[in-house]
Amino acid sequence: MTKWVYNFGAGRKEGRSDMKNLLGGKGANLAEMAGIGLPVPPGFTLTTEVCTAFYQNDRKYPSDLKAQVDEALAHIEKAEGLTFGDIHKPLLVSVRSGARVSMPGMMDTVLNLGLNDQTVVGLAEMSGDKRFAWDSYRRFVQMYGGVVLGVDHHRFEEIIEHAKQTRGVTEDTALTAEDWQKVVAGYKEMIAAEIGRPFPLDPQEQLWGAIGAVFGSWMTPRAITYRRLNDIPGDWGTAVNVQVMVFGNMGDDCATGVCFTRDPATGENMFYGEYLVNAQGEDVVAGIRTPQPMANQRSKPGEQPMETALPRIYGELMQVRATLERHYKDMQDMEFTVQRGKLYMLQTRNGKRTAAASLRIAVEMASEGLIDHKEAVLRVNPSSLDQLLHPTLDPKAKRTLIAKGLPASPGAASGAVVLNADEAESRAGKGEAVILVRIETSPEDIHGMHAAKGILTTRGGMTSHAAVVARGMGRPCVAGAGGISVDYAAQTLTAGKLVLHAGDIITLDGAAGEVFSGLVPMVEPTMSGEFATLMKWADDIRRMKVRANAETPLDADTARKFGAEGIGLCRTEHMFFDPKRISAVRQMIMAPDEAGRRTALAKLLPFQRQDFIDLFRIMSPLPITIRLLDPPLHEFLPHGEAELADVAKNLGADVAAMRRRAAELAEANPMLGHRGCRLGVTYPEIYEMQARAIFEGAVAVARETGLAPVPEVMIPLVGLKKELDMTRAQVERIAKAVFAETGTTIEYTIGTMIELPRAALIADSIAEAADFFSFGTNDLTQTCFGLSRDDAGKFLPTYVELGILPKDPFISIDVEGVGALMRIAAEKGRKTKPHLKLGICGEHGGDPASIAFCEEIGLDYVSCSPYRVPVARLAAAQAALHGGGDRTV
Amino acid sequence: MTKWVYNFGAGRKEGRSDMKNLLGGKGANLAEMAGIGLPVPPGFTLTTEVCTAFYQNDRKYPSDLKAQVDEALAHIEKAEGLTFGDIHKPLLVSVRSGARVSMPGMMDTVLNLGLNDQTVVGLAEMSGDKRFAWDSYRRFVQMYGGVVLGVDHHRFEEIIEHAKQTRGVTEDTALTAEDWQKVVAGYKEMIAAEIGRPFPLDPQEQLWGAIGAVFGSWMTPRAITYRRLNDIPGDWGTAVNVQVMVFGNMGDDCATGVCFTRDPATGENMFYGEYLVNAQGEDVVAGIRTPQPMANQRSKPGEQPMETALPRIYGELMQVRATLERHYKDMQDMEFTVQRGKLYMLQTRNGKRTAAASLRIAVEMASEGLIDHKEAVLRVNPSSLDQLLHPTLDPKAKRTLIAKGLPASPGAASGAVVLNADEAESRAGKGEAVILVRIETSPEDIHGMHAAKGILTTRGGMTSHAAVVARGMGRPCVAGAGGISVDYAAQTLTAGKLVLHAGDIITLDGAAGEVFSGLVPMVEPTMSGEFATLMKWADDIRRMKVRANAETPLDADTARKFGAEGIGLCRTEHMFFDPKRISAVRQMIMAPDEAGRRTALAKLLPFQRQDFIDLFRIMSPLPITIRLLDPPLHEFLPHGEAELADVAKNLGADVAAMRRRAAELAEANPMLGHRGCRLGVTYPEIYEMQARAIFEGAVAVARETGLAPVPEVMIPLVGLKKELDMTRAQVERIAKAVFAETGTTIEYTIGTMIELPRAALIADSIAEAADFFSFGTNDLTQTCFGLSRDDAGKFLPTYVELGILPKDPFISIDVEGVGALMRIAAEKGRKTKPHLKLGICGEHGGDPASIAFCEEIGLDYVSCSPYRVPVARLAAAQAALHGGGDRTV
Repeated sequence: MTKWVYNFGAGRKEGRSDMKNLLGGKGANLAEMAGIGLPVPPGFTLTTEVCTAFYQNDRKYPSDLKAQVDEALAHIEKAEGLTFGDIHKPLLVSVRSGARVSMPGMMDTVLNLGLNDQTVVGLAEMSGDKRFAWDSYRRFVQMYGGVVLGVDHHRFEEIIEHAKQTRGVTEDTALTAEDWQKVVAGYKEMIAAEIGRPFPLDPQEQLWGAIGAVFGSWMTPRAITYRRLNDIPGDWGTAVNVQVMVFGNMGDDCATGVCFTRDPATGENMFYGEYLVNAQGEDVVAGIRTPQPMANQRSKPGEQPMETALPRIYGELMQVRATLERHYKDMQDMEFTVQRGKLYMLQTRNGKRTAAASLRIAVEMASEGLIDHKEAVLRVNPSSLDQLLHPTLDPKAKRTLIAKGLPASPGAASGAVVLNADEAESRAGKGEAVILVRIETSPEDIHGMHAAKGILTTRGGMTSHAAVVARGMGRPCVAGAGGISVDYAAQTLTAGKLVLHAGDIITLDGAAGEVFSGLVPMVEPTMSGEFATLMKWADDIRRMKVRANAETPLDADTARKFGAEGIGLCRTEHMFFDPKRISAVRQMIMAPDEAGRRTALAKLLPFQRQDFIDLFRIMSPLPITIRLLDPPLHEFLPHGEAELADVAKNLGADVAAMRRRAAELAEANPMLGHRGCRLGVTYPEIYEMQARAIFEGAVAVARETGLAPVPEVMIPLVGLKKELDMTRAQVERIAKAVFAETGTTIEYTIGTMIELPRAALIADSIAEAADFFSFGTNDLTQTCFGLSRDDAGKFLPTYVELGILPKDPFISIDVEGVGALMRIAAEKGRKTKPHLKLGICGEHGGDPASIAFCEEIGLDYVSCSPYRVPVARLAAAQAALHGGGDRTV
Repeated sequence: MTKWVYNFGAGRKEGRSDMKNLLGGKGANLAEMAGIGLPVPPGFTLTTEVCTAFYQNDRKYPSDLKAQVDEALAHIEKAEGLTFGDIHKPLLVSVRSGARVSMPGMMDTVLNLGLNDQTVVGLAEMSGDKRFAWDSYRRFVQMYGGVVLGVDHHRFEEIIEHAKQTRGVTEDTALTAEDWQKVVAGYKEMIAAEIGRPFPLDPQEQLWGAIGAVFGSWMTPRAITYRRLNDIPGDWGTAVNVQVMVFGNMGDDCATGVCFTRDPATGENMFYGEYLVNAQGEDVVAGIRTPQPMANQRSKPGEQPMETALPRIYGELMQVRATLERHYKDMQDMEFTVQRGKLYMLQTRNGKRTAAASLRIAVEMASEGLIDHKEAVLRVNPSSLDQLLHPTLDPKAKRTLIAKGLPASPGAASGAVVLNADEAESRAGKGEAVILVRIETSPEDIHGMHAAKGILTTRGGMTSHAAVVARGMGRPCVAGAGGISVDYAAQTLTAGKLVLHAGDIITLDGAAGEVFSGLVPMVEPTMSGEFATLMKWADDIRRMKVRANAETPLDADTARKFGAEGIGLCRTEHMFFDPKRISAVRQMIMAPDEAGRRTALAKLLPFQRQDFIDLFRIMSPLPITIRLLDPPLHEFLPHGEAELADVAKNLGADVAAMRRRAAELAEANPMLGHRGCRLGVTYPEIYEMQARAIFEGAVAVARETGLAPVPEVMIPLVGLKKELDMTRAQVERIAKAVFAETGTTIEYTIGTMIELPRAALIADSIAEAADFFSFGTNDLTQTCFGLSRDDAGKFLPTYVELGILPKDPFISIDVEGVGALMRIAAEKGRKTKPHLKLGICGEHGGDPASIAFCEEIGLDYVSCSPYRVPVARLAAAQAALHGGGDRTV
């Protein structure tokens, strides 16, 4: 018999925190907390296997589920001395979802379940507070009506508004028990009209309705979207937690709150959180009332910190905090309720945190001895580092502050104001920087938040949906900026007298909670001590080297600063766009014959040599992989009459002839055209010039600095062994000539990109002529999929949306297809040369999932953009910790 | 010790015909003929290994070669009673090349070697003919001077011209022994001046010079070109044959000739050939004198057939003919010389022949019992069938005959007159049909002959260079059309009063030897009885089915006529270009939304349904693989204002909006763009319409004819399993709907193209959703190589030229790369479904080498253009005979 239901509390310890797959995160942690003696209201969990069985069996429950639920419920009734549906001592429960990983706001919750026209009387008796009882009942009907029965929440608000108008009051708090009784009656009437049947009053019917709603919400579009964005498989399912209700809203000796064992924004080791007196938990999270701080140290004048207001409870919470951190060895995000002076823990989980906090907590916990260095390295999400490395506002820059809000997620961002998520996504998709501005956000906005550079809300606290999600995504966020009002219909923001329109530029400082009009200049980030510490630990652990893709001295400097161990890709064609030389480049390409090309190349040689001298000076003695020219030719073609005339003059040709030549050079599919080594083979003089510039530059820097550079000459777009043979011979000939001319010899190697399926398939043969392979995964993805990156925008988003592709393969390596080619190439290459150096220089080189794959197939290094170098260093360390055993090559 | 030299004749039988790799074709056959008792002048062969060693060892001979040559020569001297360099009884030899396969005209020959100022006297004594001796000497000096010493042949002609002028005669035959003696003196003086040293008079020096020239000629550009065109590896090397001279020019009881055991043009079983009395062999081949026929039956009034002129010799030759055919079991091409009434055989080899002859000979030899059916099937080159299947001149068409020549190679062709090979190549490269017109052709013209549709010469016979090469290539050729004069300088042909200029169109009838001005209409070929017989034998042998790529009723008819067993590729987008529907197609593509597309698709449905009805009627019950729409979208975009306005009107949109939409739809790399199933996934209504048209059409034809068609619906450009899942589900849904609507159910299957590397790599997963795979090798080649077919023209020819690529991979499958993907896909697909149907529908499906590869990896069928179907049937049979054992899947 499958055990579908696990009890916690009330003397039963059926679950543990390591049973998250079965019980979900919330259920497992409730069981764990109860198990270690923390005050948890008793309850039980319907496992994730129920959810899976439900969906596999045409939305039917396992036949023995009901009996197990009945038994679990009976146990609680007995322990609590309450009975479900009892008119005098009614048991009330909450019903909550809980998946394996936290999915904030995605799953629906029903509180106070078990109330009806009879039990509400019992609740009034037990609590001695009729108003509380009827308020609880109306909250239940409202929640159940919305979540389970699907009635629009405006319909409920209308009834409350009506009640307030009738009574001539403006606040909910001014309504009496009788008012709430009328509201409940109004709710039930309205619901019956909406759904065509009465509101369910049988607590059993209520319970199964709520359970069904939780399981049902697993497959809502918003849940599916969240899972897609967060790579959560749909077949994990969610658990359902049924738990005895405790009330934070029974009076002023009641409270509810959310707190973190450490500061989730900065990572500082200080108790942190928010609470509300006389409130239910949803009131804190929903951001409707402004919560109060926990610690005195965190409070501002006029605030009521818990440390002062409820000192005993605060003390108990501080003990819980210590217990949980020792127990879980990670920063915890807890929910609690105080019912009539008694503390109940409702949830604990590893807290979401900013990148900076994640880093600081990991390093400090390791220093405190809670975890070791490896664990610390594993604790920080490499992608999140990105946000620590990006610019913040230039403190010296002039700026116009228009509003202040909560510093909900650090970082700075500028962009055009956009007032809805769909538009944010579509404009961002076209490359525009946008700031999503909302009164408050909800799970329906996640795609827009993901697309935006930053998020601004005018309502809600530090634990509001917007704040939590933005921190998780690493997006700067200013929350609860009450000084701004948003008019969706007019598409405006108003801050005092200032009216901004959708499309106007604003700047956010998420760390300060400030909003500025216009674009504010930003400065480079400085790195914290914890950053350097963690990087050091990562460097000690990782096997793969990390290099940077760089061709300018600025990039090379940044790369070294971020710890790059060489340049993995110097794209020489990028050096050709400089205005001083583009004319000669055009001349080279447009020349009708070799002589014309040689004349143009002679002009380019000094520039190109100087390029390499500059790079070698910065990087020596680290290796620099220099890719010989790989243009789509058309990028260099002259545009317009002036450029045509310029080229014609330089070549002594007429403009008409040049126009014909340009038309001749145009390509139907430039990505599959006369590129890379095809150019080197057909116009050998081009690679000759580049090789000369490399070796002359290397010799010059070797003499100047005494540190010989290590050029690694990389031939692009090789698909045939003979292409590499020929171009290699060319480069070697030039090297020999330069060494003879200068009397100085330097070490160098010659290798190739593996960026065509054919190259991967014949890698054993290509390896004979290559000292190294570097996977050009951008092009390899294009050719493996038959997918032009430039054109994929027309259908790739739809593909990701529909789940046809799990991820954009240009961001994260498609392991199944492109990865298969890489594996073939690595295996075949090393069959020919066991120590063949293997690297990656596509943009995937900075993507943690792709880096893990590179570790798995045994690459020697990854190369990525300079800013991603720390990300790659950390990801490589994590890959080494996870993946060492999987190495298959 | 390596044996470098093999004797033949004079009692030694060291070689055999199966030693061609070592002795070359000529040497092996000389040894074989000597071995079976035919009259062969004795000699010896330096093996191909000498050539290979020579090139591997920096053009030096093996150290023990000289001793072996001396010994072989001594043996012959002894047998013949002649001595090399002897003043009275001089041994004279010929030195000829002989590679493994015949390379006509590519290798150089030296005759009469051993003559000098002393031995010429001995020859005069022995022959009793001083004029003959000096003529022979001058021939030797001229040949040796040209071939070995590299002196231009004009320089020799000038000296002969001068001699004739001095004597006031116009014919060589009018020159006396003394005249020739002077000519020899003049030659030697001229050569000494040219090369800066005297002409070599020492026979040993002459011999080694000639051997060196043969080996040297292996690496001349023209030899390299020939090998490239004929896929002959450079490391095979050539052998050198040194053979005692016999003379066909010692008087009227002497002759020389070339003959075939059967007619090489028609294959008719009749002795066939040409000879000249009192001539050396080169005179026949060079086409300078017009040779006489062999058989009376072949002679025209005024000719001197050998049967009449030299009946005894003719009788001996008829016996040799019978002996050789029985021995070699193939049609032989023989060279003979008659010296003073005695017949000598100088060469035999399998004769080159036209496709028609090849077919007739194979079938007749099998009927005669000389060979079996399998051997007959292997005897015919599948590619050569192509020429039997192409049009001939319409007998009813009006035509203007401008000249007659020899019917040197059958077939008809029209094209623009081009007077040199380079221009023929370059104009043909641009897609123009050209006829190469030359006075006579030489090996330097091969590339132009290859490029031309037909060849016309004004000089030379049926065995002239032009005739032999044209037959081998399958190009129509009219040779020796003496009524036409060619003026290279003026770029004109003159035929009587008619002057044609380069660029004017002419038509050749190679089977009749006729030349017409202008374009003459042609008719479809009819197939001979032998053709049907051979095809039947091939069909009995082959394992793979052969289908055709066809979408029009005309193509489908042709396909069935040629024996196609179904349609392997019906490209539905080709059906969309019809003027009646292109407007609706544009409307569909340009529609901004689904509703607009559905409106346009509704217009297209009846057309498309009718397309399928027409095809099903022709093909039922054979299977038809219908590929759903796979356009590069841009091909359908409206061009120009009129088309834009038309689309705008149909869509009720303004032209400016349409222009924007067209710009939006433009793609940077259409080949890698929004194509194939990507369109089906994003615009499912398109495939729905096509599926509906297919199933409605199939049901209609099933009811009408009682023969249910077997539609195989093929989804193009699948790279992801889910693409196929989704589109398959769409098609199945429509099928179900149509069957329900019509009450008729038909069988159908759904499969996919494998045309992306990713599809090949995940073929095991794709196979789960596919009933069949069809390799789209055109696109697979493009993506595997990263090479756009449209753009490859800029460098692919250079690649083939430089030997970087052995063949154009769009013509013959690149086995190493593309083939590797096919092998992976076949293996993985069959791992999932052992009986998964596999086929190929790229243009490679009609290429014999590619068909052999398809057999090797176990495909079930190939599909090719209708005209290639017989080629594929034969190639598939040959592949089955060769490749059955290699099947690896």
